[in-house]
Amino acid sequence: MPAPLPDTAPDAARRARARAAVDGIVRVTPVVRSAGLSERFGAPVDLKAESLQRTGAFKLRGALAKLAALGDEAAPGVVAGSAGNHARGVAQAALERGLPAVVFMPVGAPIAKIEACRALGADVRLVEGQVEASLAAAKEHARESGKVFLHPFDDPDVVAGQATIGSELLEQIPDLAQVVVPVGGGGLVSGIATAIKAERPDVRIVGVRAAARGAQRASRESSSPVLRTGGFARRESPVTTIADGIAVKEPGAYTGPLVEALVDELVAVDEDSIAEAMVLLLDRVNLVVEGAGAVGLAALLRDLVPRPDRGSTALVLSGGNVDTGLLAEIARRHESLVGRRLGVVALLPDRPGALVRLATAIASVGANVVEVQHVREGIDLHVGDTTVRLMLETRGPEHAHEVLAAIEAEGFPVRRADEAG
Amino acid sequence: MPAPLPDTAPDAARRARARAAVDGIVRVTPVVRSAGLSERFGAPVDLKAESLQRTGAFKLRGALAKLAALGDEAAPGVVAGSAGNHARGVAQAALERGLPAVVFMPVGAPIAKIEACRALGADVRLVEGQVEASLAAAKEHARESGKVFLHPFDDPDVVAGQATIGSELLEQIPDLAQVVVPVGGGGLVSGIATAIKAERPDVRIVGVRAAARGAQRASRESSSPVLRTGGFARRESPVTTIADGIAVKEPGAYTGPLVEALVDELVAVDEDSIAEAMVLLLDRVNLVVEGAGAVGLAALLRDLVPRPDRGSTALVLSGGNVDTGLLAEIARRHESLVGRRLGVVALLPDRPGALVRLATAIASVGANVVEVQHVREGIDLHVGDTTVRLMLETRGPEHAHEVLAAIEAEGFPVRRADEAG
Repeated sequence: MPAPLPDTAPDAARRARARAAVDGIVRVTPVVRSAGLSERFGAPVDLKAESLQRTGAFKLRGALAKLAALGDEAAPGVVAGSAGNHARGVAQAALERGLPAVVFMPVGAPIAKIEACRALGADVRLVEGQVEASLAAAKEHARESGKVFLHPFDDPDVVAGQATIGSELLEQIPDLAQVVVPVGGGGLVSGIATAIKAERPDVRIVGVRAAARGAQRASRESSSPVLRTGGFARRESPVTTIADGIAVKEPGAYTGPLVEALVDELVAVDEDSIAEAMVLLLDRVNLVVEGAGAVGLAALLRDLVPRPDRGSTALVLSGGNVDTGLLAEIARRHESLVGRRLGVVALLPDRPGALVRLATAIASVGANVVEVQHVREGIDLHVGDTTVRLMLETRGPEHAHEVLAAIEAEGFPVRRADEAG
Repeated sequence: MPAPLPDTAPDAARRARARAAVDGIVRVTPVVRSAGLSERFGAPVDLKAESLQRTGAFKLRGALAKLAALGDEAAPGVVAGSAGNHARGVAQAALERGLPAVVFMPVGAPIAKIEACRALGADVRLVEGQVEASLAAAKEHARESGKVFLHPFDDPDVVAGQATIGSELLEQIPDLAQVVVPVGGGGLVSGIATAIKAERPDVRIVGVRAAARGAQRASRESSSPVLRTGGFARRESPVTTIADGIAVKEPGAYTGPLVEALVDELVAVDEDSIAEAMVLLLDRVNLVVEGAGAVGLAALLRDLVPRPDRGSTALVLSGGNVDTGLLAEIARRHESLVGRRLGVVALLPDRPGALVRLATAIASVGANVVEVQHVREGIDLHVGDTTVRLMLETRGPEHAHEVLAAIEAEGFPVRRADEAG
């Protein structure tokens, strides 16, 4: 017999109220079965594209559920502190309910996210420091103004709101065997697990965290080279992470015990595998999914998700709000990784016409020049020679070899820019 | 009274056979109502995300319908010539039906597309030259081998296959008033229009072409600066277009008259507006949509789509197969456009410590240095001075001003790299 739900889990009445609160406002987000991933995993894989939710993430569900639970208590307005998705969810939910919203965000938050909240009519106030400072400012403002502070996750009604994803999964995937869910503060996984275990206690819940930086370092040796460049060990940024939606959070006083009781397995993934998962979703599934939303696929790609004997494994893609800057970086790194960007250094006589011959050799095999730089200083060169550093666009590793051969055939010594020496 | 369907349009029996052929194999792709676009357009806008179709584009539908119509005739196998989506659609359809497929593709086709066809078990043969050469080679091979050549669009059964999107739209959007469809060879728009006009002749069909290069040049002055860089007029590439799925095609002998009879309005969009539409879909809707698939949104953004008095306007996002290289480029250009990339040129004394002061000034206001280059040659400099060209990451236009002010406050003359002088 499976264990019953913990007493503290949102009960059926609370979950029903949450479902009514989101009905007609949130999208029932599509489920896409991926043939490629199913083949790779050896069992059916379904993607729950919550990244296509309004506001681009699941947070709207919890905010709507909380407002419904508050009823008239929310009339003075609501307050939130967040660097991203929670702020947008609260702003959208308040707009739907005709309530004023004040949102405290870090000054360093992406301008697109700040503007998205403003466009939803929220009173956005920027706070120096990290997201903790914004949270503190929000609580302080709520105390002073009589408005209601909305916690991003540590609240039974917020959890009941996120539980609506679990109910949708049960309806959308009849042969559901397992659900893989990102874990930050634990609101999403607690909610989904509650809704599912209440009806189908046999369905397995796998939680996925973005590894702490220490763990990332430990896993570096075995990890993929997606985010490594040109032979240099990459420095980890001390503050940013590709999965910023979940990496800095820990389950709270309310969600902690729920996570403990309801999650069958908790695994962690590193930055490189998250980047790889994001690229795969972009390139193969045509979905933009943020780092925090891609951790489930990252875990699957790293063989951290057990394969069920039968039935479908659903990956919850919890959000899709990625800065275009990060998107560009991830796509570009992927191009390098798969050999479609080729950096080379060639040695040329420093005479008129030499560059023409080099460019002609490159063009003759159909490669495209992205960048050219002459490097003469700080290296050991014969008088009358120069080195040229080029970034080329190629069709892949085989084509890259052709390009190098064509340059050598023209009589110019050449090496890849990422080779030693 | 609306005009009846042309006699040549695929009839109900042919369309029913097509629908049975795709059933259970193609995805009924989701429809997403966009609140942001609806507000901007002043009427409801629904996105038909055919970009989430298996193989990443609608072509699978037509290929399955054609195989069903051929029946035993297809037993020797099928042949196609294509640089992209049609090849994948044919390869997937043949795999589903257990038929051998030979696909002729240009040697210059993106390696990802070639590999996708190989992964589906197709016999891929690379042909020198553009896609026309691959088409000719495919026809020749079909003649010699007794296999069946599958035309990418100019075929009643292929059109009947694409018509299944129209049937889905009627079921998914009860208040459908208008459908906006990309037009290349005309197979997609003929099919959708036939299915819809057969049941709802009042629904308006708007076809959107990618403008010919001449037309692009003509529209340059009024177009957005998305693809323009650093004050220079951008050269148009003579062969590539961002909407390569449709730009080089013209409706054929079969589809031409159908397009003429069924499309209420035909408009054209330029490259810049297509890029803008792709970024908007990436950034706001979290969908990766290829250029050919984004032309409908481009037309809407350029006010080329009439606003219906009531009911929904559906945009058919016909495919999502974008090279990650192009994705990176589009995302990066968007960053520049919205002021999150700032190129500056600063004048520094050529002495130890000057770069430290410059870097400190930049860091003090929270901007990130992406690239640094010292430029001493070919410009008019005092002895003992150097210019430094920097690419910076900022949070937006206001932040960019702050950065410039911080550099000036340090005593270094500075200008934006895209300013004249």
